[in-house]
Amino acid sequence: MTDFSKSQRSLGERIRDARKEKCWTQEDLADEAEIDRSYIGGVERGERNITFSMLCRIARAVGCDVASLTQELPNE
Amino acid sequence: MTDFSKSQRSLGERIRDARKEKCWTQEDLADEAEIDRSYIGGVERGERNITFSMLCRIARAVGCDVASLTQELPNE
Repeated sequence: MTDFSKSQRSLGERIRDARKEKCWTQEDLADEAEIDRSYIGGVERGERNITFSMLCRIARAVGCDVASLTQELPNE
Repeated sequence: MTDFSKSQRSLGERIRDARKEKCWTQEDLADEAEIDRSYIGGVERGERNITFSMLCRIARAVGCDVASLTQELPNE
């Protein structure tokens, strides 16, 4: 069974970078995306295996799409 | 709260198309990606909110990456 935790961590960093580009706190992103702040924290730290709908919600909140958030992520 | 079920259905169609391009049954994809076949079915029908790790696994099985599976998906 392949372990995709490296991809998960990289995605978390992408999301954190996208949030910081907007000068938002996790709380700001949580409000904007209508997601619990602790969920955002877990995703950014690469601990949480985000669902597609949450990924859509975050992408929309930061003004991009899922494909650009996942562009060239390691997939191993 | 935004409803991303349209994105979810479109993603399911993408996955189905990618699988059919390889002339695979759902069972073949399930074996290749090490995912339960009923999970694949639910995703392809747009009923299941796939997790990021499962998306990575499917992308890898069909030989592409998550970004190309999610390219220009509706995000509304």
